[in-house]
This record gives sequence, structure tokens and C-alpha cells, in this order.
Amino acid sequence: MNTVTAGILLIGDELLSGRTQDTNSGDIARFLGPLGVQVGEVRMLPDDTEIIIANVREFSNRFDYVFTTGGIGPTHDDITADCIAAAFDLKISERQDAIDELLVRYKPEDLNPARRRMARIPDGASLIKNPVSLAPGFQTNNVFTLAGVPQIMRAMLDDIGHRIKGGKAVLQRTIPVKGMGEGDVAGPLGVLAAKFPDLSFGSYPFFNDGGYGLRIVIRGTDETRLGAAEAALIALLGY
Amino acid sequence: MNTVTAGILLIGDELLSGRTQDTNSGDIARFLGPLGVQVGEVRMLPDDTEIIIANVREFSNRFDYVFTTGGIGPTHDDITADCIAAAFDLKISERQDAIDELLVRYKPEDLNPARRRMARIPDGASLIKNPVSLAPGFQTNNVFTLAGVPQIMRAMLDDIGHRIKGGKAVLQRTIPVKGMGEGDVAGPLGVLAAKFPDLSFGSYPFFNDGGYGLRIVIRGTDETRLGAAEAALIALLGY
Repeated sequence: MNTVTAGILLIGDELLSGRTQDTNSGDIARFLGPLGVQVGEVRMLPDDTEIIIANVREFSNRFDYVFTTGGIGPTHDDITADCIAAAFDLKISERQDAIDELLVRYKPEDLNPARRRMARIPDGASLIKNPVSLAPGFQTNNVFTLAGVPQIMRAMLDDIGHRIKGGKAVLQRTIPVKGMGEGDVAGPLGVLAAKFPDLSFGSYPFFNDGGYGLRIVIRGTDETRLGAAEAALIALLGY
Repeated sequence: MNTVTAGILLIGDELLSGRTQDTNSGDIARFLGPLGVQVGEVRMLPDDTEIIIANVREFSNRFDYVFTTGGIGPTHDDITADCIAAAFDLKISERQDAIDELLVRYKPEDLNPARRRMARIPDGASLIKNPVSLAPGFQTNNVFTLAGVPQIMRAMLDDIGHRIKGGKAVLQRTIPVKGMGEGDVAGPLGVLAAKFPDLSFGSYPFFNDGGYGLRIVIRGTDETRLGAAEAALIALLGY
């Protein structure tokens, strides 16, 4: 199978301290799935120049696409743009096209040195539109550098789909099974996993006021095979 | 400063597909902060034996403590216990102490082969109590292997605090600043970061129905220094 992959680097001390709950990685994964791109790994990294540079290089080599979120604002700990430039040995400077974006929102006299930092873009990178707060993201080789604020990050994805060449979209079916535990379905799932090696099978327990059960998720790229596996599962469970 | 660190490995394809939202890393980070342990990196990994083994080895060397979540249930894709054993060149087998825990919940005749898999524990590992569903986690060297289901994971943390030797607890103060953007506070924050190199300063924008603003977070281990920095910040902002 022609698998197209992505890696995600979530940048910011606030994620590692547990102060901020990441939702960006899930949003990116659900954006990429229908495009036929599978996320292979996600990392949360501290605001540390050397660590970020090393991870950008590693992920750019390992994955078809890389997404970074966070660290492109105006404050002293916003170091992502400089790290991306360093990772690819590119110069970085204030770019007029990025300043022009900011001037749609800010009066020239409000464009203080801190805000001008948001127009520092690695040489040769193409801007990614930010319809929310206008400070752009940017693409450098196969790396997309996005904002950390979820509303802004999601809006930036609208300017990314057209840049991606995905593989076959991954489809999934979810079969809820009430009143069974993982130990009850493990045998049948193992049988199915051996019989349908082109599909993946997961079981996810839930507990709620209405009782307990599992959601069984079957994933793959072939609709017909998914249907066959679902039928086989239901027969095996006698459900 | 005597910094004690932890790394977290979140294991499971369902995290990478965006099907399941991680909350375990934040729960672990907030559990560790008061114990004086700082999370240095978090990774979400696929259900892939070689990848998990390599990451367990790397993190066990890099960090004082490592937490893994996920992959210790009864199904075919629950491979974490075997990976931990392989990472440390340990044998793994069904252990009677773990079977005894399961027998509190299950009748012997319900302890089918799938459920018995949850009693496979690497040699020499000490069990971690699971008061919710009884299938234990375990500690191998500096690695704590916990369940992926958040309710169970959180309950297992109760049996971990006494095993950890932390450093100084990291304290934090949060100062809400309404009606200002990051570009307005970036200058003052940069000044403070230079003046208080022992503290860290972050600014986190919010947008809600009541308007917009920032939360400024100051972190450090010395209560007096935090107070001085907070006073200096308020003076600089004229707030």
C-alpha cells in the first residue's frame, strides 16, 4: 500500500507542564485522514532551540510531511521560526509579504518590534494564510509551521490541503458492542486480524451511566474489505 | 537547580488517527509537578513493536522516570508488556501475583486466554495496583507501564507517588490580563525573562464571549522570586 505519512511536533512548555491540553494533533490527524495521509508520530517538545532543531531535521527526513504548532507569536519564547531556519540552514529575516499581512490588522504605529517578529520568515518559505489574526504560518520544504492557538491552527489548515499529495484515504467503521469487555472480544478480534491483514482492528472500552461496553474500530482503504470484516465480526460475536 | 525529569510514551494507533483524544499526558504532568518532576518530552507512538522498544530504551536513558500508557489490555494489539521486556532484555511470563489480582474480579472459568495475557509481566517488575479493573500495571527499572483508559491510568498513579524521588516542586502564578495581546506584553516579558533567568514566563492568549486577553504564567521553584517577578510585571504593564 502506498502510505503517505506525517509527523507532528507540538512546541511549548505549557503542553509539557499540563497547563494546556493539546487538541491540535487530533485536529491535524482528522484533517489528514481523508487526504490519505497517516500520522506516524506526535511529539510534544519544550521551548528549547537545540531540541526543536534536531526534531525538525529528524521528522523532515522520516515523514512525507511535518506539521509544527506553537511558538510563532511575538514573545521571547517564540523561537520556532528561527529553529526552522536553522534546521534547514536558511537565513531568516523580516519579510515584506508577511508585514503586508499584519498591516491589514495593525496600524503602522502599532506594529511594534514584538509584532514585527511575527513577520520573520525563513528564506524561500511560502506563507500560510491566517484568516483569524493574520500573522502567517509558513511552509519550508515539507514542513508546515502553524500557530499553537487551536482556532488559528484550524483556520490555517484551509491553506494546506492543496499543497498535499496524499495516498488512499483511510476509511473506518465503528461497531459498538454493549455489555462486553475486551477479554470477551479479544479472541474473535485476533482471528479477524489474521484473516484481514490489510485492515487494522482496535477495541476501545467505554464506561458510562448506561453501563459498559466496547467500540470496535476497523480501519482500511478498501470499502468492500471493511464490509466483509464487519460482517465476519458480527457473526463471530453472535451479536 | 536539581531538575528531576520524566518522559511520557503514549502508545496506540487510536491516538495517531485522531480517534482518541489524549488526556493522560496532562494528568501525569499535573501529578508530577507537585512532586518536583518536570516532563521533558511526550511522544505518541503507533502499535509497532520495534518503534516502542526503541523509544522505551531511549527514554529510559534520557529521563529519570518514564511513563508509558496504553497497550496492556487483552487484545492482539496490546503489545506493550512484551516490548518493555524486550527493551530491557528480560523474560516475560504469566505471573501468579498478577493472576491473583485478576481472580478478585473474574471467576476462574472466565479467565480465558485473552484475559490471562494481562498477567504477563516482565521478570523482576513490581506490580502497580489497579483499583478500577484490577489488571495491574508494572514498574521495570525507571519505567512505569500504565493502562491507556484515563480512569484506570489516573487510579494507578496512586500507587506511584511513593516510588518517586522528586526535586523541588515547580510553583506557578497566573496573572490574567484583559484587553491586551501578546504583542503588547512581549516587550515587558522579555525584560522580565532577562531579569529573572531562574523563572520561566509564558503568555497564553484567550478569546471568549467576554472579549480577549492573555494569561501570563510565571513558573519557578522559589516563592519569593515568583512574588518579586509578579510585582515587577504588574508595574511594567501599568496594570
